[in-house]
Amino acid sequence: MKEELYKLLDECISTGNEEELQVVKQILEGVKRKRENLNGSYIGGVLGMERTLSENHCDVSIPITPFTYNSFEIVHGGVTATLVDSAMGTLANIILPEGYGAVTTNLTMHYLAPGTGGNLTARASVVHKGSKTLVMDGKVVRDDGKVIAHSTGSFFIFKK
Amino acid sequence: MKEELYKLLDECISTGNEEELQVVKQILEGVKRKRENLNGSYIGGVLGMERTLSENHCDVSIPITPFTYNSFEIVHGGVTATLVDSAMGTLANIILPEGYGAVTTNLTMHYLAPGTGGNLTARASVVHKGSKTLVMDGKVVRDDGKVIAHSTGSFFIFKK
Amino acid sequence: MKEELYKLLDECISTGNEEELQVVKQILEGVKRKRENLNGSYIGGVLGMERTLSENHCDVSIPITPFTYNSFEIVHGGVTATLVDSAMGTLANIILPEGYGAVTTNLTMHYLAPGTGGNLTARASVVHKGSKTLVMDGKVVRDDGKVIAHSTGSFFIFKK
Amino acid sequence: MKEELYKLLDECISTGNEEELQVVKQILEGVKRKRENLNGSYIGGVLGMERTLSENHCDVSIPITPFTYNSFEIVHGGVTATLVDSAMGTLANIILPEGYGAVTTNLTMHYLAPGTGGNLTARASVVHKGSKTLVMDGKVVRDDGKVIAHSTGSFFIFKK
Repeated sequence: MKEELYKLLDECISTGNEEELQVVKQILEGVKRKRENLNGSYIGGVLGMERTLSENHCDVSIPITPFTYNSFEIVHGGVTATLVDSAMGTLANIILPEGYGAVTTNLTMHYLAPGTGGNLTARASVVHKGSKTLVMDGKVVRDDGKVIAHSTGSFFIFKK
Repeated sequence: MKEELYKLLDECISTGNEEELQVVKQILEGVKRKRENLNGSYIGGVLGMERTLSENHCDVSIPITPFTYNSFEIVHGGVTATLVDSAMGTLANIILPEGYGAVTTNLTMHYLAPGTGGNLTARASVVHKGSKTLVMDGKVVRDDGKVIAHSTGSFFIFKK
Repeated sequence: MKEELYKLLDECISTGNEEELQVVKQILEGVKRKRENLNGSYIGGVLGMERTLSENHCDVSIPITPFTYNSFEIVHGGVTATLVDSAMGTLANIILPEGYGAVTTNLTMHYLAPGTGGNLTARASVVHKGSKTLVMDGKVVRDDGKVIAHSTGSFFIFKK
Repeated sequence: MKEELYKLLDECISTGNEEELQVVKQILEGVKRKRENLNGSYIGGVLGMERTLSENHCDVSIPITPFTYNSFEIVHGGVTATLVDSAMGTLANIILPEGYGAVTTNLTMHYLAPGTGGNLTARASVVHKGSKTLVMDGKVVRDDGKVIAHSTGSFFIFKK
């Protein structure tokens, strides 16, 4: 296995361009972030998710890099969905009492503008807190302040 | 840069467990897939997306691995969204005439069951083909045949 | 009360045009449909909903009349939503065992084409039947075969 | 036609209960509201929609009466959708320049609590104003302040 990994990295380094090496660096640092429990998932780690909690919100930010691009070289709609679902899911699990968790049952994304610039921040807010379900609102904002996605999510509450 | 990359990989190999090394292997192979144009995006490459086209559908599959997990160790809802958005977006761009592209304006996901087993396949179908917008239907299926997500997407058609 | 009703009808008849009288006729017939239990709700009655059940579907149809129009004189998006929600809700309550009911928790509508022609039919199908939730798919079709709306709905199952 | 209308009303009055007569009164008053241009559509008239505009919002209210009920005797989800779609659509058409209109392309409803009490108010706000599309947010509130539905809508802008 180790030889395979070195061989894959050697191949990257000898044939990949500068962009690719940056992507590999971001990814390996992301795996390390997961190992050190800075992120709860590999996908959160490799996207470089950083979270900030306040009383009523959960903000999750990622840098915009080639790793986040779709084939048109703008942020992949799935990456934006992953970002906002992570912010909502984190907030859902924070506001629930000990011993309860929440899983997404519905996620609706309205994409408003392309994801460009240096980074994206998803802000999740609670719309409804019931005994069986939660509803969240999520906005994704560029570093120039433009809202690029507006979303809503429903979560089902379960006993762990 | 190269030294940094080797240092990051050395650190993985010396401190990471078997799961982590498998994730790193998947990711480095995915970067290679992007370099070799087997995938149009890094995110498609590292998730290991394979696509199959038929007359009316576009199927995109990924293996389920720890890289795809959320912090509950089931497939991250954002990964499922990325998979189905990729299948829909690929189909959208295939059915449009030369010189036109399509971007997602709305994506609605209904999550029905946890993503478990060996792989997931998203199947996109055209619901509506207008002159300005497309609407797609997407289903995500496990290898045991269970539908785990049902989604719909709207796409805005633009002239490249 | 009775005098008020006759006064309102007299006013309609003396000042209303032919279209308005047709609308009043449709509405009064709809109230009668509710009284005779041909429809379970006044809104279903006045819209003239007729349902047909088959093994896997529930179809609900309404005539397109000025009563169904928005201010642009095409079928109001809310009327289309009412039609498809009724078809889904009927199917939900039919497939559940005795003593259980279902309420809509999420409804997503994609409007594809204007509602024109003589009538609209919504066809609801089951996408997912879980122990706590149901997910339905609904299509609304014109009498020329054109699909004018594609929708999905989530339902929460409760014990009556 | 006139005889038919009187016959239908006679039948209502002789066989209908108090609730039914109230519904007929509401409906006939609603038709009058449409005739007098207090509402732009029959459906808005018979539901008794009243609108209030402020700089950034459009509020539309309706009384909760048996006419608005589904077969469980709570407000029909389709009526709530009609209310919020009307508030959004009104706001969309107000903020657009002379000569432009907007039609709903996507409507997503999250139903949070049953519609009970004396009335419901939908408040529409602009989330995104682009050159081709508008995105709106809509909340539906009971008279006790409880939010019963949270919704988002996309609108396509057209030249009249």
